[in-house]
Amino acid sequence: MAALELIIGNKNYSSWSFRPWIAMKVKNVDFKETLSLFDEATDQAHFLEFSPTKKVPVLKDGDHTIWESMAILEYLADLFPDRGFWPEDRMMRAHARSISNEMHAGFGPLRSECSMNMRREVRAIGVSDGVRKDVARIEAIWEGCLKSYGGPFLFGEFSNADAMFAPVVNRLDRYELSRTPAVLDYSQAMTALPAWQEWEAAGKAEPWIVEADEA
Amino acid sequence: MAALELIIGNKNYSSWSFRPWIAMKVKNVDFKETLSLFDEATDQAHFLEFSPTKKVPVLKDGDHTIWESMAILEYLADLFPDRGFWPEDRMMRAHARSISNEMHAGFGPLRSECSMNMRREVRAIGVSDGVRKDVARIEAIWEGCLKSYGGPFLFGEFSNADAMFAPVVNRLDRYELSRTPAVLDYSQAMTALPAWQEWEAAGKAEPWIVEADEA
Repeated sequence: MAALELIIGNKNYSSWSFRPWIAMKVKNVDFKETLSLFDEATDQAHFLEFSPTKKVPVLKDGDHTIWESMAILEYLADLFPDRGFWPEDRMMRAHARSISNEMHAGFGPLRSECSMNMRREVRAIGVSDGVRKDVARIEAIWEGCLKSYGGPFLFGEFSNADAMFAPVVNRLDRYELSRTPAVLDYSQAMTALPAWQEWEAAGKAEPWIVEADEA
Repeated sequence: MAALELIIGNKNYSSWSFRPWIAMKVKNVDFKETLSLFDEATDQAHFLEFSPTKKVPVLKDGDHTIWESMAILEYLADLFPDRGFWPEDRMMRAHARSISNEMHAGFGPLRSECSMNMRREVRAIGVSDGVRKDVARIEAIWEGCLKSYGGPFLFGEFSNADAMFAPVVNRLDRYELSRTPAVLDYSQAMTALPAWQEWEAAGKAEPWIVEADEA
């Protein structure tokens, strides 16, 4: 029996759930996955049963609860120090944490205007200047990392930084927000991961929740 | 010569600058402090000279730049593993990171409606339901930590979690948002720190920037 349990909201839309999930899959962590569906009608009141913030994802380790994506990713790095959740090199690790935390607390316009959506067809929408600024910054981050460390992931091997940016790969593609060489190269590496494909297929197959935009 | 340089915006208002600054002071880290003042007229364009996100704080270590408060605090924990930037116990550390990251990415209403302000007189203002919800959550976090770990700081000894919540101590007091026993106890421990008093005195003495609210 897996001691770790990851509670997630759904696979088509829950970008925060996707982050620790893909990290744990890529790094071969044994865990139980529990789906606790979003329910707008109750404003996610049921999440309070397991989440002090009424948000997902939440990682349970026995009686202990860890919340916030970044804290979960840090905990995994603590638990499995040899699996490369963070780069080995201290300065690369500091760089990886800088961009990961930038993602965690930032990019509000992109996050609110262009939801992650695994089943969405590729189609541009009108976006704000804020989204365009977010996309330009993300292009610069990805290009800088691929150039500095050689790819195929942001710091060479897959790390927590890739987990943090995973949902953005879907957004830049599905809303036709960017097709720079670095974005295309990086997106190809990410979407080729078996873990990516497993999540995407499950998201597409989910029978619940259909946004107006998709109808 | 200190190898570390922390670039901050000002001391009266810059809550993000305060976080790594107080952690470094409490943990006796030798660093050079550089003030690069906020300038609304130029929308902080000058910050781009040292900060890829046009935000402060930024930590320089030689040629390397670390940005985002949480990444800076993690870097300090990496550099000085014996100074207790995070709790020693893995589960306490996970808890500390959960609430620290909750602060990093959350509490938007409190942050936007009740700016940290060292020189502000104690006076209530009308606040939104969002602020009241944020305050209730913060009361629960602080009370839970003090009860679980015995105080005087959130995890016993001062840690990065206290650095993350330091500006909130000022906010709850100056805007008369909460006076629960846990809030009062914790605020007393924090404001008794010599580092706190040094920052507050410097903030009060700053001759620049006066918000309309204070006039």
